Amino acid sequence: MVVAVIGGGQLARMMTPAATALGVRLRVLVEGPDVSAAQVVVDAPVGAPREVADVLELVRGGADGPRADVLTFEHEHVGADVLAAVAELGVPVRPSAQALLHARDKLAMRARLAELGVPGPRWAPVPDADALTAFLAQMGGRAVVKTARGGYDGKGVRVVTSADQVADWFDAAASGGPELLAEEAVDFVRELAVLLARRPSGEVRAWPVVETVQRDGVCAEVVAPAPDLDPAVARAAVQAATTVAEGLDVTGVLAVEMFEVSGPDGSRVLVNELAMRPHNSGHWTIDGAVTSQFEQHLRAVLDLPLGDPGARAPHAVMVNVLGSSRERLTDALPQVLADPHLRVHLYGKGVRPGRKLGHVTAVGDDVADLRARARAGAALIQGTADLAG
Amino acid sequence: MVVAVIGGGQLARMMTPAATALGVRLRVLVEGPDVSAAQVVVDAPVGAPREVADVLELVRGGADGPRADVLTFEHEHVGADVLAAVAELGVPVRPSAQALLHARDKLAMRARLAELGVPGPRWAPVPDADALTAFLAQMGGRAVVKTARGGYDGKGVRVVTSADQVADWFDAAASGGPELLAEEAVDFVRELAVLLARRPSGEVRAWPVVETVQRDGVCAEVVAPAPDLDPAVARAAVQAATTVAEGLDVTGVLAVEMFEVSGPDGSRVLVNELAMRPHNSGHWTIDGAVTSQFEQHLRAVLDLPLGDPGARAPHAVMVNVLGSSRERLTDALPQVLADPHLRVHLYGKGVRPGRKLGHVTAVGDDVADLRARARAGAALIQGTADLAG
Repeated sequence: MVVAVIGGGQLARMMTPAATALGVRLRVLVEGPDVSAAQVVVDAPVGAPREVADVLELVRGGADGPRADVLTFEHEHVGADVLAAVAELGVPVRPSAQALLHARDKLAMRARLAELGVPGPRWAPVPDADALTAFLAQMGGRAVVKTARGGYDGKGVRVVTSADQVADWFDAAASGGPELLAEEAVDFVRELAVLLARRPSGEVRAWPVVETVQRDGVCAEVVAPAPDLDPAVARAAVQAATTVAEGLDVTGVLAVEMFEVSGPDGSRVLVNELAMRPHNSGHWTIDGAVTSQFEQHLRAVLDLPLGDPGARAPHAVMVNVLGSSRERLTDALPQVLADPHLRVHLYGKGVRPGRKLGHVTAVGDDVADLRARARAGAALIQGTADLAG
Repeated sequence: MVVAVIGGGQLARMMTPAATALGVRLRVLVEGPDVSAAQVVVDAPVGAPREVADVLELVRGGADGPRADVLTFEHEHVGADVLAAVAELGVPVRPSAQALLHARDKLAMRARLAELGVPGPRWAPVPDADALTAFLAQMGGRAVVKTARGGYDGKGVRVVTSADQVADWFDAAASGGPELLAEEAVDFVRELAVLLARRPSGEVRAWPVVETVQRDGVCAEVVAPAPDLDPAVARAAVQAATTVAEGLDVTGVLAVEMFEVSGPDGSRVLVNELAMRPHNSGHWTIDGAVTSQFEQHLRAVLDLPLGDPGARAPHAVMVNVLGSSRERLTDALPQVLADPHLRVHLYGKGVRPGRKLGHVTAVGDDVADLRARARAGAALIQGTADLAG
């Protein structure tokens, strides 16, 4: 079995243990010979995900094949023409181009989720400054503006109080850049995420609902399961994510980021963002769940039975390692690995400030203790805490 | 950090997930471009472990380096001249040549274990047929004859009742082949194994004692922990293994295979074989222990703190997948993965009768149920049970 993957970052890298165990050959289209996944995948051609020829070569397997059984992704930045060309070869694309559209285009996503009745913030397309000014007036003067395409990790998102704060984006849109939408600036209690997997035959399995903590638009911490979450809210969250998965015909892993908001009748959830691939909110599953999101994604896109998404322990806390002062992250291993509760995952990436370079997961019984340990481990690795001695 | 590994079989293959997570680069000397580890290790030069030039190139890293931080092994079939040449470069060899001698030469092992007071079967070197005849007479007419070097998986071991049953081995020894030793044919209750890791600074961590079931001289099943083992016997087993590790100055993972024998004062253990590397008796640790033997081996040879060897669940049962009638093992995945208790590990090896091609582990609460599931899964994969439909 051969799975072709577009994108050579850490998400493709972390697919390798499950692929190795299941006898699945990964063939990963990488951005360069030294990127995160290229360091650990033998069959890793360099190419561009927007080039039809590069992606067809990835799927065909070059001169010595074999042809891939399925094409999947670690990011959504792939053109429809590329996906159509692959489909013409008869190789399944999972998730499909039609599903992916909703992860790539936030206007399409909001429109479809509204049709499906999935709860979300109030929103509107804002083709021009007047439209945004009108939306701001309805929202009490404050809103979130997003580019419909191309955003990630806080990029392409601004909280604004007047239309001139995104004048550059309107200019860009007028000259062919991404369209804009505006969303209610939700006054949330916290952020949650539902991660699930769905296979073509329809089976859906969801991991426990997690709490995510963002800093500067980037995921910083994930606590699984979300502490003190009302079981009814957890059920509603999983139900909303399942509706999205089925309504958009998603195959593979789907991450649905949500706001938990309080109201007169208790909490409820609003869907914020979607990602149709393994996701930072699911890295805890490597060490904390019976089946990791990376194994589950491979199973799902190969239409194999899905694994048990249950937790292995009462709690898991994942803290991202973000680029800071330390250049050689492995210098911290002698100290970090001395904590038997910590599981360390490094991505082999060059250090840049704020860049996701790895993560640390702590699994056990006491969530406060786990959080402290995971934070301490990440701080040591990234260099925001000093090493002893 | 770069770890050079000699040998491209499944043991090197299964080091890759931990290496990837810890940011350790593996460089593996493989027997051919398509062997088990070569499929999943980017830096996998083809070469011979007995060729000094090939091993020095492995450790130096060729033209573009970098030099390895340590050299380790997935098998013991390496010459002393090779190890001496590496040591001369200043690159640590772990386990050391001196320690490895005892895994490569059963006469040296028996002599040293006797010095250390480690319990074992009665034994004697048998330089010729007369010596064996004399040993047989002392043992009541039956003994196990072993070649001191080169044996594995039941090869190089015969149970004999007369010296002429190993006449070919005496002939071989006379013309430069391996020397022979004879051991008491132990009337054991069952076989046990202790797996531990030791790092250069002296830290030793042992996993729970397991029961191993051999068929035709090959490991077939492992049950962790060994069911109904007297805690005093378990302690004695770990103590014996620790004495071996410290007495032989082993670094990395050490597997000590033992016989449990009953006597007038209850059970006791006798050491049967040693292996200084990850071992089939520890494959259950991938899914069943907090720290797998493969991660622990890398930590140990890099002199990093050892991880928690504790079990994640009350029981784990590992059953080997052995070559039989099925050619494409992945054909069974749709059926095998439908059992949520099974974890499947395939090695990417060509099918030959009886060859170790993978393993299946079941982790949970009910050992009889786990054993049945793991056996059923392995039988489906190898083709000794028919797939449904």
